[in-house]
Amino acid sequence: MSMLRNFFLSLSLLLLSNGAVFADSTDPLPSWNDSQSKQSIMAFVESVTRSDSSDFVPVAERIATFDNDGNLWAEQPMYFQLFFAIDRVKALAEEHPEWRTEEPFASLLAGKLEAALAGGLESVLKIVMASHAGMTTEEFEVIVSEWLETARHPVTKRPYTEMVYQPMLELLDYLRANDFKTFIVSGGGIEFMRPWTERVYGIPPEQVVGSSIKTEFEMEDGRPVLRRLAEIDFIDDKEGKPVGIHSHIGRRPIFASGNSDGDLQMLQYTAAGDGPRMMLYLHHTDAEREWAYDRESSIGKLDKGLDVAAEKGWTVIDMAQDWSTVFPAEVK
Amino acid sequence: MSMLRNFFLSLSLLLLSNGAVFADSTDPLPSWNDSQSKQSIMAFVESVTRSDSSDFVPVAERIATFDNDGNLWAEQPMYFQLFFAIDRVKALAEEHPEWRTEEPFASLLAGKLEAALAGGLESVLKIVMASHAGMTTEEFEVIVSEWLETARHPVTKRPYTEMVYQPMLELLDYLRANDFKTFIVSGGGIEFMRPWTERVYGIPPEQVVGSSIKTEFEMEDGRPVLRRLAEIDFIDDKEGKPVGIHSHIGRRPIFASGNSDGDLQMLQYTAAGDGPRMMLYLHHTDAEREWAYDRESSIGKLDKGLDVAAEKGWTVIDMAQDWSTVFPAEVK
Repeated sequence: MSMLRNFFLSLSLLLLSNGAVFADSTDPLPSWNDSQSKQSIMAFVESVTRSDSSDFVPVAERIATFDNDGNLWAEQPMYFQLFFAIDRVKALAEEHPEWRTEEPFASLLAGKLEAALAGGLESVLKIVMASHAGMTTEEFEVIVSEWLETARHPVTKRPYTEMVYQPMLELLDYLRANDFKTFIVSGGGIEFMRPWTERVYGIPPEQVVGSSIKTEFEMEDGRPVLRRLAEIDFIDDKEGKPVGIHSHIGRRPIFASGNSDGDLQMLQYTAAGDGPRMMLYLHHTDAEREWAYDRESSIGKLDKGLDVAAEKGWTVIDMAQDWSTVFPAEVK
Repeated sequence: MSMLRNFFLSLSLLLLSNGAVFADSTDPLPSWNDSQSKQSIMAFVESVTRSDSSDFVPVAERIATFDNDGNLWAEQPMYFQLFFAIDRVKALAEEHPEWRTEEPFASLLAGKLEAALAGGLESVLKIVMASHAGMTTEEFEVIVSEWLETARHPVTKRPYTEMVYQPMLELLDYLRANDFKTFIVSGGGIEFMRPWTERVYGIPPEQVVGSSIKTEFEMEDGRPVLRRLAEIDFIDDKEGKPVGIHSHIGRRPIFASGNSDGDLQMLQYTAAGDGPRMMLYLHHTDAEREWAYDRESSIGKLDKGLDVAAEKGWTVIDMAQDWSTVFPAEVK
């Protein structure tokens, strides 16, 4: 039985691993132009998965981490979670008369977004967290899911979950077909992402790392619930990303993908391990199909990261040049 | 090609899933006597995995959480991590002259364990954390691994990683063969467990939840490292267990296994979900092959949990009655 099982298993694995075996006949990254970026990615994946390769990496160590905002889905004209926060603040404003005079809520409610966001990511997260607390974790999941069903992007009028990048969906699939475990490591709220990452990206909740507020176990009418407290627990950005990776994954990634200076430490941490490594920066160069921004942007600023990438020889994806398709809606 | 692939795949899956298909011919839990506990476990697993069952649970939601100390490995005559801490304190004592007068180190170094441990788990964790900080995460992993190679249990003289429970190893395998994802959720240190849980339990680092100290990203000679700080980050015990589960897994388990009052909230949280649930308590009743302790024990106290289990009809494993084998060394 054992020999028979092993024979069929081997045969199936061979037939299943079309990413490697049938690379010639099926392009696993059809929305990527045949650029240096695509070639680098495929050469890396082949080198760590071919059992006769000197760079072979065992399956358990094939950890790939992806930033979310501006990397798996868009982040312009501002972080999508902020649109959620604004809608939520508006919905709750009647219950919170104090917000009319208290910043940054006063500015938010007055429609003065720039004033409300002036304090950068820390202040942004403060707004987000403050508008996200008080309910149980289950209630919050429902609130996020319902918002995603009805909310539309202000420019494209599409649901936010359709503002994801088709080439990155293909990259996630390609890595998983080659036995990588794919994780999100985002500055965004962990509980804002988990309700939809499995459906949209194929990434289950236990593989999502993000910023968090504290939760507390309590009994509500004899039933245990987790209450979301208005207190920041962890900010998963910049130096926080390697800390979040270590806390949640406990292993150094061999592949990391980001698009801003907030991802630099994650890429540095990934680069510092032994053996083969791949560090990817997505450069937003496509003003026509998406947005073009980098060193001067207040959202998704990519400045120091571009310099380090050039110095270290990391792969920089030029969105305009390297992607034949940006959003799934463009796929024929 | 696709049909051929599907045929072999189906055949392989059939041959691989011996837990379900060959349940009659192969006992997946050979170290369990044919008791009510074993029958309950197998009936539960069958009910959630049979596709025609009204209790069927999709693979993604088959989350099982296990306490570690006293549940997957022994915890007597005291928590094994404490033996590690004592050995570590002794090894570092020369560098820390202040420990000679500072409690609980003074008591530890004087061999007065009871005095050092008088403060309960919080104080125990404080001792552990204080003796575990200062180095990088990579250095700590080496320290733990080297200790496990040489340290021996004071009573059995076996390596600590052989003080694991054979029936629980079988249960972990059985659940995974039925597409459960198995997690550790322990009051012990997350970084104390991760270096060996994959080898010993088949549980990878990213599926280990535990207590933690803070870490900080820093550059050491131009290389990014994570430094372990002498500051408690999270205590994964009692009310902390559902919080840790939510933070790391983001999904409510459908199966939870513990052995002490420290696991009660995890079991309550698991029980409170919709659909089929299994809550397991391991009752240490075997003074001959292991240890017998429950309501009065200072380590692994099981008092309120026994009452709740009886009231709610949870499964209580009677170690002496239900297990034909306790430790792997007893397997013929």
